[in-house]
Amino acid sequence: ETDFWCFCQDEAAERLALSLLTKGGLHYRPRLNFYYLSPHLLDLLPAKNGEEPTIQFLLEVVDILTNYVKKTFDRSTKVLDFHHPHQLLEGMEGFNLELSDQPESLEQILVDCRDTLKYGVRTGHPRFFNQLSSGLDIIGLAGEWLTSTANTNMFTYEIAPVFVLMEQLTLKKMREMIGWPSGEGDGLFSPGGAISNMYSVMIARYKYFPEVKTKGMSAAPRLVLFTSEHSHYSIKKAGAALGFGTENVILLSTDERGRVIPADLEAKIIDAKQKGYVPLFVNATAGSTVYGAFDPINEIADICEKYNLWLHVDGAWGGGLLMSRKHRHKLSGIERANSVTWNPHKMMGVPLQCSAILVREKGILAGCNSMCAGYLFQPDKQYDVTYDTGDKAIQCGRHVDIFKFWLMWKAKGTIGFEQHIDKCLDLSQYLYNKIKNREGYEMVFDGVPQHTNVCFWYIPPSLRGMPHGDERREKLHRVAPKIKAMMMESGTTMVGYQPQGNKVNFFRMVVSNPAATQSDIDFLIDEIERLGHDL
Amino acid sequence: ETDFWCFCQDEAAERLALSLLTKGGLHYRPRLNFYYLSPHLLDLLPAKNGEEPTIQFLLEVVDILTNYVKKTFDRSTKVLDFHHPHQLLEGMEGFNLELSDQPESLEQILVDCRDTLKYGVRTGHPRFFNQLSSGLDIIGLAGEWLTSTANTNMFTYEIAPVFVLMEQLTLKKMREMIGWPSGEGDGLFSPGGAISNMYSVMIARYKYFPEVKTKGMSAAPRLVLFTSEHSHYSIKKAGAALGFGTENVILLSTDERGRVIPADLEAKIIDAKQKGYVPLFVNATAGSTVYGAFDPINEIADICEKYNLWLHVDGAWGGGLLMSRKHRHKLSGIERANSVTWNPHKMMGVPLQCSAILVREKGILAGCNSMCAGYLFQPDKQYDVTYDTGDKAIQCGRHVDIFKFWLMWKAKGTIGFEQHIDKCLDLSQYLYNKIKNREGYEMVFDGVPQHTNVCFWYIPPSLRGMPHGDERREKLHRVAPKIKAMMMESGTTMVGYQPQGNKVNFFRMVVSNPAATQSDIDFLIDEIERLGHDL
Repeated sequence: ETDFWCFCQDEAAERLALSLLTKGGLHYRPRLNFYYLSPHLLDLLPAKNGEEPTIQFLLEVVDILTNYVKKTFDRSTKVLDFHHPHQLLEGMEGFNLELSDQPESLEQILVDCRDTLKYGVRTGHPRFFNQLSSGLDIIGLAGEWLTSTANTNMFTYEIAPVFVLMEQLTLKKMREMIGWPSGEGDGLFSPGGAISNMYSVMIARYKYFPEVKTKGMSAAPRLVLFTSEHSHYSIKKAGAALGFGTENVILLSTDERGRVIPADLEAKIIDAKQKGYVPLFVNATAGSTVYGAFDPINEIADICEKYNLWLHVDGAWGGGLLMSRKHRHKLSGIERANSVTWNPHKMMGVPLQCSAILVREKGILAGCNSMCAGYLFQPDKQYDVTYDTGDKAIQCGRHVDIFKFWLMWKAKGTIGFEQHIDKCLDLSQYLYNKIKNREGYEMVFDGVPQHTNVCFWYIPPSLRGMPHGDERREKLHRVAPKIKAMMMESGTTMVGYQPQGNKVNFFRMVVSNPAATQSDIDFLIDEIERLGHDL
Repeated sequence: ETDFWCFCQDEAAERLALSLLTKGGLHYRPRLNFYYLSPHLLDLLPAKNGEEPTIQFLLEVVDILTNYVKKTFDRSTKVLDFHHPHQLLEGMEGFNLELSDQPESLEQILVDCRDTLKYGVRTGHPRFFNQLSSGLDIIGLAGEWLTSTANTNMFTYEIAPVFVLMEQLTLKKMREMIGWPSGEGDGLFSPGGAISNMYSVMIARYKYFPEVKTKGMSAAPRLVLFTSEHSHYSIKKAGAALGFGTENVILLSTDERGRVIPADLEAKIIDAKQKGYVPLFVNATAGSTVYGAFDPINEIADICEKYNLWLHVDGAWGGGLLMSRKHRHKLSGIERANSVTWNPHKMMGVPLQCSAILVREKGILAGCNSMCAGYLFQPDKQYDVTYDTGDKAIQCGRHVDIFKFWLMWKAKGTIGFEQHIDKCLDLSQYLYNKIKNREGYEMVFDGVPQHTNVCFWYIPPSLRGMPHGDERREKLHRVAPKIKAMMMESGTTMVGYQPQGNKVNFFRMVVSNPAATQSDIDFLIDEIERLGHDL
């Protein structure tokens, strides 16, 4: 006998289906399951006979989710339906965020699911350009659904055998892409690029001053870290958290494209040494957050070798370009790094979160972090306990971030990621070519962008004739926030803006969603002009 | 017209269904979607007309997952199908973990999904007792599926308006349960208890020595942290990472039940001060990992007040008991803590990961961690930017851990969590009563356990007459690992073991899965005896 799982809108449809199937000649009563609900929470598993209501409930949720997915890719859907915090807190048409002592009905839970999505932001929408992470990869999504169903933890092979091995193989593959011999080395998936960068600082310190682990920072001289003024703030955050102090995070000057000037690094190393400080660590950014700039890794590596410093490459955003034969030259020299941050959840479209810290030297991650907790990492297990990776991490429990990435890699192959990346970079070049000489636009820096970041000012007609000076600067500074606010209110598209150094607010366009097309780029520009024309 | 979504096993079933529906009198061709696949990856969204293959693919994945869920709750299913790392790496019947340049077919992807689950561990199985986190809550699971579909990031209200508000309201509710006046204070969900504990040390340091943020640890005197010898290793890890040094993490003695002896804390504070060190921070554990012990918070708080130290309560495991009117007295005094770690992913059955760091003083989290990155936290947005919580975190991007928890709280109500917790504690008392006087068992400590942890040795008949001494110790030390290995090979159940201090390997039983029943406890005991009888 065959089971049918039928989902239709209402009871009338159920009766229709059932009568058609039986009238049609079906001689047994098929198992039909309909997606309107009657059961209560207590009827779900682990309740006895909880299977059917459980499957019904989950399929109803899936119906909500698949509808959301379909609409997200539909350009007639808004990117968001903006409400202020006080509006959502006051409650929207029966959507009440408050928690109570008493349970809600499953029907209300489904309403809550729908409303949560309704008032959220569609980060997978082809016109959402607001963040480095965007898109909604269907394979990755399926991977996340499986991951949460498996509901396990990365700390031991014992309870995550498959995921632990997938992590090892995938990290090795990433190290091969970096160019470390035979993909040797070590690594971990961590909860985001900031934590990956923090790892790099920790292991650099452990490499040169292992006694800090037991004796604290007072066992080391005054240690200095170097990173570009355009680099991600997580290096500074790591400096604060790990006890270096932000004053010992020296910011390096950049050229007009936001790339570190190697001579400035060398001068600042010499200066620190003259003051009696000990230079420890240099971060080179591969794909800066705002400009998408790639620091010249080879030149920086030369200096690091000369002065015996740890070289970290923060490729959280730009690491993905290693998958592209056309663009990987921008990270030339990365194989000389001691450690690399690389976030597949950014340029490679893997669902959040998925960030790797990769280390060239084997064993140093464990050396730095292990505490050998007996209750978790028993040495007398029946399997090879070198697969218990938990003690390398600063976390104890660690979320399974690998499976969705592994599954996407399986489904796309390396060449699929390459196509994705090449396509996004082509799109951003299309945008650059479109606006570089267009009336009403000024580029923040000259030349074809290195990554998908295109940084520009939109100059409303009222400012176009105005002489450069403070008044124009002040007015221009307010243009991007105003356009962005109107954009969010109308919900049509989203793009980021920020000031940088002495530059007033400008738009930073980025593309990482392969669903975006040239027409979406055109739409963004039309929308900026529509909303900004009369400012 | 009504759409039917039909899922049946094969093409024959499709033809059958279609013919029945049309023979039965249906005059339009219904939209039938069958769960065997033909489309390719490139037919999925964002492909043009990608909707149907996308929904088909996702529903096929859901079919795999719902079958997995059903089987997980079925006691005739094995908890795991154990294989050694080399076996899985060599490839199991077409399950190949290696990644390649070329894409796989969607059919293979589905096979990979099935195999990933097949060779994993069913942490939701009613006989999986191996970890503090267990179970598979259906509402929580639905919440995770929605979270991954929304695929957004907690750092700004801008892209996670609903989730940011849910986090605020839920944290407030948790602070109310702790007993802080009006639920005031601050907090964040973080990637696990170890990171939450690390936050507590960071903010304690910032409170007393804010200049460390800019100047580093050299700006502070030698700072000392105190925690029990039974506490979680993450306090020591935080000491290492943050630059205190593990030697400055002083371990406190405990009574025979694993609870801190307050007089030992005071003596060690005085000793540290006499040496010229500065006591900074005390961690009191509410529910220790192995014994499930609750440190006497009120007595520790008295000492912290006397010496002006930061009091942190690590309630990662025991915090859930705050939801139970019967058991919350075990955390009496927690309202006097400066900060609290509380992991709903442990005792409350929320899917991994879900850990909160809660802080009594408002503003200090942001003071400690903020770096004011202009590109993310623009002050000139159109909404109230105090809702942009990202700069409080040491992470930049932060996974949405709140929704599943919020949804479970909605669905169960506070009283649902209370019932869950009371039930698990009752079960562990059942186990305790069953074995405390049973032949062949010795309890590791006397008396009714405070939490669900029941710690015991199983003494095989061959050791029962043996005099206490080194030989017996050595033999007994090998019993639990041997039984555990056989348990994993047979796949029937899983329970943890470890040594502790001078105690040889013993079993640590814990219950956090509401699917478990007395019969599962009986099964565990039978299984230990079956496997261990002839050792």
